Amino acid sequence: MFQVPRGTRDFTSDEMYIRDYVEKNMKETFASFGYVQIQTPTFENLELFTAKSGGSIIDEIYDFSDKGGRQLALRPELTAPVIRFYVEKMQMEPKPLKLFYFGNCFRYDRPQKGRYREFKQAGCELIGTDKPEAYAELIALAYNLLRNVGLKNIVLNIGNLTLINIIFKKFCLTKKCIDYILPLIDKSMFEDVRVVLNEEGIKKEDSEVILELLQTSDINKIKKYTKDDESAIKEIQNLNSIINFLENSFKITSYKIKMSIVRGLEYYKGLVFEIDAPVLGAEKQICGGGVYDLVGLFGGRDTPTSGFAVGFDRTIIALEAKEFEFKKQKVDVYIIPINEEMIEKSFEIAQKLRMQGVITEVDLLRRGIGKSLKHASSKNTKKAIIIGPDELNKDSVTLRDMQTGEQNLVKLSDIIIKIKDS
Amino acid sequence: MFQVPRGTRDFTSDEMYIRDYVEKNMKETFASFGYVQIQTPTFENLELFTAKSGGSIIDEIYDFSDKGGRQLALRPELTAPVIRFYVEKMQMEPKPLKLFYFGNCFRYDRPQKGRYREFKQAGCELIGTDKPEAYAELIALAYNLLRNVGLKNIVLNIGNLTLINIIFKKFCLTKKCIDYILPLIDKSMFEDVRVVLNEEGIKKEDSEVILELLQTSDINKIKKYTKDDESAIKEIQNLNSIINFLENSFKITSYKIKMSIVRGLEYYKGLVFEIDAPVLGAEKQICGGGVYDLVGLFGGRDTPTSGFAVGFDRTIIALEAKEFEFKKQKVDVYIIPINEEMIEKSFEIAQKLRMQGVITEVDLLRRGIGKSLKHASSKNTKKAIIIGPDELNKDSVTLRDMQTGEQNLVKLSDIIIKIKDS
Repeated sequence: MFQVPRGTRDFTSDEMYIRDYVEKNMKETFASFGYVQIQTPTFENLELFTAKSGGSIIDEIYDFSDKGGRQLALRPELTAPVIRFYVEKMQMEPKPLKLFYFGNCFRYDRPQKGRYREFKQAGCELIGTDKPEAYAELIALAYNLLRNVGLKNIVLNIGNLTLINIIFKKFCLTKKCIDYILPLIDKSMFEDVRVVLNEEGIKKEDSEVILELLQTSDINKIKKYTKDDESAIKEIQNLNSIINFLENSFKITSYKIKMSIVRGLEYYKGLVFEIDAPVLGAEKQICGGGVYDLVGLFGGRDTPTSGFAVGFDRTIIALEAKEFEFKKQKVDVYIIPINEEMIEKSFEIAQKLRMQGVITEVDLLRRGIGKSLKHASSKNTKKAIIIGPDELNKDSVTLRDMQTGEQNLVKLSDIIIKIKDS
Repeated sequence: MFQVPRGTRDFTSDEMYIRDYVEKNMKETFASFGYVQIQTPTFENLELFTAKSGGSIIDEIYDFSDKGGRQLALRPELTAPVIRFYVEKMQMEPKPLKLFYFGNCFRYDRPQKGRYREFKQAGCELIGTDKPEAYAELIALAYNLLRNVGLKNIVLNIGNLTLINIIFKKFCLTKKCIDYILPLIDKSMFEDVRVVLNEEGIKKEDSEVILELLQTSDINKIKKYTKDDESAIKEIQNLNSIINFLENSFKITSYKIKMSIVRGLEYYKGLVFEIDAPVLGAEKQICGGGVYDLVGLFGGRDTPTSGFAVGFDRTIIALEAKEFEFKKQKVDVYIIPINEEMIEKSFEIAQKLRMQGVITEVDLLRRGIGKSLKHASSKNTKKAIIIGPDELNKDSVTLRDMQTGEQNLVKLSDIIIKIKDS
């Protein structure tokens, strides 16, 4: 027997019903913010990803040669493809460009709970503006996207990579030391950071300050230690401005300043933010984004870029964990011809109902009334229409309410209206 | 500069707007027929496709080894994955199962007009019934799917592989001869078929009969030459029954019987059908399907299966070729703060409108009124709201109709209703 490839999934119709609902809802939110949808291919030239993330990314991705010897890779994420598309074909379009996307991504990873080798991302890129209100709107979009699908308990964290780098520089941390502590900071393993800083010969009092700043949510503390740096002053002004817009315009007050967000230091710069769904436990981050720098690297004319990506699968898991009430799939009408001669009429009525958008099934196994009604019940059916010769001679059919079991004779000419009104 | 991989495409927001509309419309038609959506991974184990189509398929697909040495392939089509999913996880579900899907497929092919290395398919599988009414409904679904998206000029062709095989057997064609003439029949190169039959030593009068039967649309002619074969009699009965349902229940009268449909002889059997969009010229086939046999091959308990696939990209090209009038993307409201102090209020109003599903943009570049109105115009905007301090002091804003240029002072408390009513 053939099996689904390791680390990948099939989705049942119940799962797809939920996923379709979430995608539709997210599309509506993106659109309401003036974002437009684009799409890129499932694979890209491998160099696109190594240029962005370095050669070591090859260990984590599906790369392969095609029959013409081209080095290709299944996309591990969508920012690089979208910026490649922008540089190739959209540089002349009026700014700002507001682009959103949905797409499956792939990583070669040990499969584990909530982590798959094929996974879906939703996301967006904002190209051509670096105003604080633009960044505030971007964060508000991410926040609204998740709230609107039904996630009520989410946590927004906002950081700034420029400020972190200025602090590291101020205390003279070496590149080697920084590379060593970043993954520890990312995992909030601050005791381990302390050990490394001591080993690296950083003075104890400096060490304490660094650890305090990494864990503070008070911008004024950061300000105090970076006030002699001009770019720090500008970043702090912008951060305050972003926060004011979030609070006053978008009524988002439940954010936290989190200086230990150090994701994607290779190409992110300045503002970074993450959204967590605590219900997910260890793998709680469902959104990450910020300001980044890729256009120049990909050969385009420099322009400010920012964006975020949402883990679509984790969003679904979070909704399910909270027992969010999704609407169930249903069949509006199940038509049962009581003998072979009634089949033609059954389909004729079905076709009329379907043209009106009514979800209509006709028994396709000539099962008889009892078994057909049972099958209809199992499919969450609202009404059954039973078509028999005696009733049809009187231009009528039997309409059955599948909840109450009530049956009525209904004129053929009235059946569409009866169904649509119910 | 990085480029899109050879033979693949990026889709602009205008293209995605059309594709999204077509997908949504098709989903509604599938659902109205009682079909439910499923999804399988983008790649499968390579053997799934070689088991179905033979080893030679490897030349035409993207196959690769993952880092664990597994032989994988980007799916070239979706029937094999769906039946693999059915055998693995859905055999116990109540019959008939009506499954539909959308998915990108891949083939390693010389890129040419209308043929890409990544392409999208829509399709469905009907599992667990072999009644003629079930097959008629399947064909009607394919037909309605294409009509409902807006393709008015389509041609439905219906064939039968069992009857063709019986004819070949009756005239004692060898397997070698059949393998040789099938691709010629598929391309309607009947003169070349005649030459091959002569070379193979088939009597001239038999040759003429074979050629006539391959080109006839008269079932009675087929009947005449196959009346001594029991399975032929049954197939002809079923075909007549299918046609009666198509004509009488589904009001589809513009079909043609076409005995030269010989596609996928490896696993199709009995009924086959194709739908063409003549506007597409040489690459006019946009749908193909029929009755096939894969469940047993994939290790499942035998059950009747049928289905069809629609070329999503060709459907789009056919619609565009007919200058089908798609709705254009639009922005409902463009908000212009006339100075920095007005930005907060602008987003506050934007947020309220967006929560109502109104597509709302706010100037993100502090451009001033003139340039912002020009930008709004270029984006097909219906209304602009201009927010200035004097008006705001009177709890009002300026509402501008972007078509007429008419401007009115509107109370803040009325703005949502004004926009929603217009």
